[in-house]
Amino acid sequence: MNRKFTDPFLPPERLLLGPGPSPVAPEVLKAMAHSTIGHLDPAFIGLMDELKAMLQTCFNTKNEATFTVAGPGSVGMDACVLNMVEAGDKILIARNGVFGMRMSEVASRGGAVVVPLDFEWGKPVEAAAVDAALAADKDIKFVAFVHAETSTGVLSDAKAIAAAAAKHGAMVIMDAVTSVGGVPVKIDEWGVDVVYTGTQKCISCPPGLSPVSFSPRAIEHIKNRKTKVLSWFLDVTQVMAYWGGEGARAYHHTAPINALYGLHEALRRVLVEGLDTAFARHKKAHLHLVAEVKKRGWEMLVDEAYRLPQLNAIKIPAGVDDAKVRRSLLLDHNIEIGAGLGVLAGKVWRIGLMGEGARVEHVDTLFAALDKVLKG
Amino acid sequence: MNRKFTDPFLPPERLLLGPGPSPVAPEVLKAMAHSTIGHLDPAFIGLMDELKAMLQTCFNTKNEATFTVAGPGSVGMDACVLNMVEAGDKILIARNGVFGMRMSEVASRGGAVVVPLDFEWGKPVEAAAVDAALAADKDIKFVAFVHAETSTGVLSDAKAIAAAAAKHGAMVIMDAVTSVGGVPVKIDEWGVDVVYTGTQKCISCPPGLSPVSFSPRAIEHIKNRKTKVLSWFLDVTQVMAYWGGEGARAYHHTAPINALYGLHEALRRVLVEGLDTAFARHKKAHLHLVAEVKKRGWEMLVDEAYRLPQLNAIKIPAGVDDAKVRRSLLLDHNIEIGAGLGVLAGKVWRIGLMGEGARVEHVDTLFAALDKVLKG
Repeated sequence: MNRKFTDPFLPPERLLLGPGPSPVAPEVLKAMAHSTIGHLDPAFIGLMDELKAMLQTCFNTKNEATFTVAGPGSVGMDACVLNMVEAGDKILIARNGVFGMRMSEVASRGGAVVVPLDFEWGKPVEAAAVDAALAADKDIKFVAFVHAETSTGVLSDAKAIAAAAAKHGAMVIMDAVTSVGGVPVKIDEWGVDVVYTGTQKCISCPPGLSPVSFSPRAIEHIKNRKTKVLSWFLDVTQVMAYWGGEGARAYHHTAPINALYGLHEALRRVLVEGLDTAFARHKKAHLHLVAEVKKRGWEMLVDEAYRLPQLNAIKIPAGVDDAKVRRSLLLDHNIEIGAGLGVLAGKVWRIGLMGEGARVEHVDTLFAALDKVLKG
Repeated sequence: MNRKFTDPFLPPERLLLGPGPSPVAPEVLKAMAHSTIGHLDPAFIGLMDELKAMLQTCFNTKNEATFTVAGPGSVGMDACVLNMVEAGDKILIARNGVFGMRMSEVASRGGAVVVPLDFEWGKPVEAAAVDAALAADKDIKFVAFVHAETSTGVLSDAKAIAAAAAKHGAMVIMDAVTSVGGVPVKIDEWGVDVVYTGTQKCISCPPGLSPVSFSPRAIEHIKNRKTKVLSWFLDVTQVMAYWGGEGARAYHHTAPINALYGLHEALRRVLVEGLDTAFARHKKAHLHLVAEVKKRGWEMLVDEAYRLPQLNAIKIPAGVDDAKVRRSLLLDHNIEIGAGLGVLAGKVWRIGLMGEGARVEHVDTLFAALDKVLKG
């Protein structure tokens, strides 16, 4: 390569059908290129208020404490877990994929006592098992789970899990990174206390931000902590002062201005289309993909009953070279799909039909390319 | 207002002469609007390698562990402090402004025993005092300080402070948020073990990222910790695996792709201009500002000997309504300047001449507007 590291960087154009990031609309990219303004500018404060209103709609919540953490979904996870747990607190973590495992790691670093509740990868979290685990240990204060497991493509029944938690007075922390914008998320109705999502999945915004929401009960809990939140940056009571939760705005950190322009435009597009229309579009693209899979005699990893439309784990057909196929799709056809993670590495392909990516024509483009690659 | 929250957002055009964000070049904004690609795409991995090389140049370091934390400078602070300290560790924190105070808060939440060393706001950290404090308490493991205090406009002598720490075997953590790109930063030569900066100051990139660098000694120290880093997301040993420090890249989090496109272009512009040329440009704009201040019979807060060129604290002239002037500058003239923070609130204006903002013509624009506003 003759490239110097100070040469301008021009990325290739890819069709993003992996587990995220998803394709970003030109309007969102253009919004990110608007001139930067100050993070205490009245115009910016107006933007923050609008973002909050749009996020409340996406989460189906009235929670005042609804805002965006200035880091990717993993930081949202840190923020939600570390604000809630204190050293010695017992937390039940339902694990049916990579992200449940990660939550355990986050909680135990935060000093919590993790009670794991494991399910086979590719299966959902069962509310009855959550109920039983809570009945068996009355000291458990929190239940955490992943609504839509990006590592497997499984949707768990959040409403039933939250109801099981409520029965035992436990508070609920939900990972909605891949669910928001792709399937219904109704945190007030379900009784979810704390939720985080990402921007690079069904909202089709570039990665780097994590919208979160805390119920009044969660905020009350945080205010009554015996110890301070371990991370100054993530302390919700302080971040809320910046996002205008109570009284005057106090400087906390410098918000990622241009990224938030992008999120505003991405959320605007989601809401102008309408959440229900977006869900139907995801479903349609997904069913088309499943039909193409069946046509070829291949199999989906996950049972139909709890399959996510936006993340499709396809069992890699026998005799096929996983890495070679993905590389050829990417480099010869400019299509990105995802590899299996953890125990599913080499066993599945993960096809994301997320946000702007959830279109029948993209599924057709993918299968046309896949057929070519497989023919060699 | 007839505005609906789902209307597109178009920010006003402001001249950013506050404490950050600084003005962003159109080329950087355009780079952020390039199509999003996957964070494990070979093209993106190439971008990460180039970013690392450019950051090494900016920090004047050979440190392998040089990369970008996916959050604003405050997250960089969390990352640097929380990776180094464990519960019970003694850390000397030199405090001469807001950001030294914040470091104390971060370290104590991380379980460290903070030994504060306070200086008057507007004065630099004195190496002799650091030496004396370390001599008085042999248990202190770390020295932390802010190289360029954004809250006051003071430059401290990093070389002398790091030398004092070295004399007593203490490791050095430096906040270089406002210094990188505006004044020389030579971490290898000075013996700084851990450093973080921001993108929205003298690098003139939108806020949201925090470049960091860890010396081999710091990495060794982190690897030998008795306890895990409190934040999973910030654990440098894991982030490094993602940035390709040792062996194959492992998935950690989803990098903020488009923000990193912007940083690449911003760093490229800094290095193509040349760091020394950029420093001289900052100095020239600063001296012009000081001359304009003197011409009006006003005063700078900070003594000439340790004044930062990129952050100028001007004492607010007697009888002037601080908030009214700043509001009029912003709303009538589209110029942002900064308010005083903490004990300096209402007493100073903070004029940032950072990165793209460090130009004589911007100083002229500002003073022409200021004169108009003050005439009423």
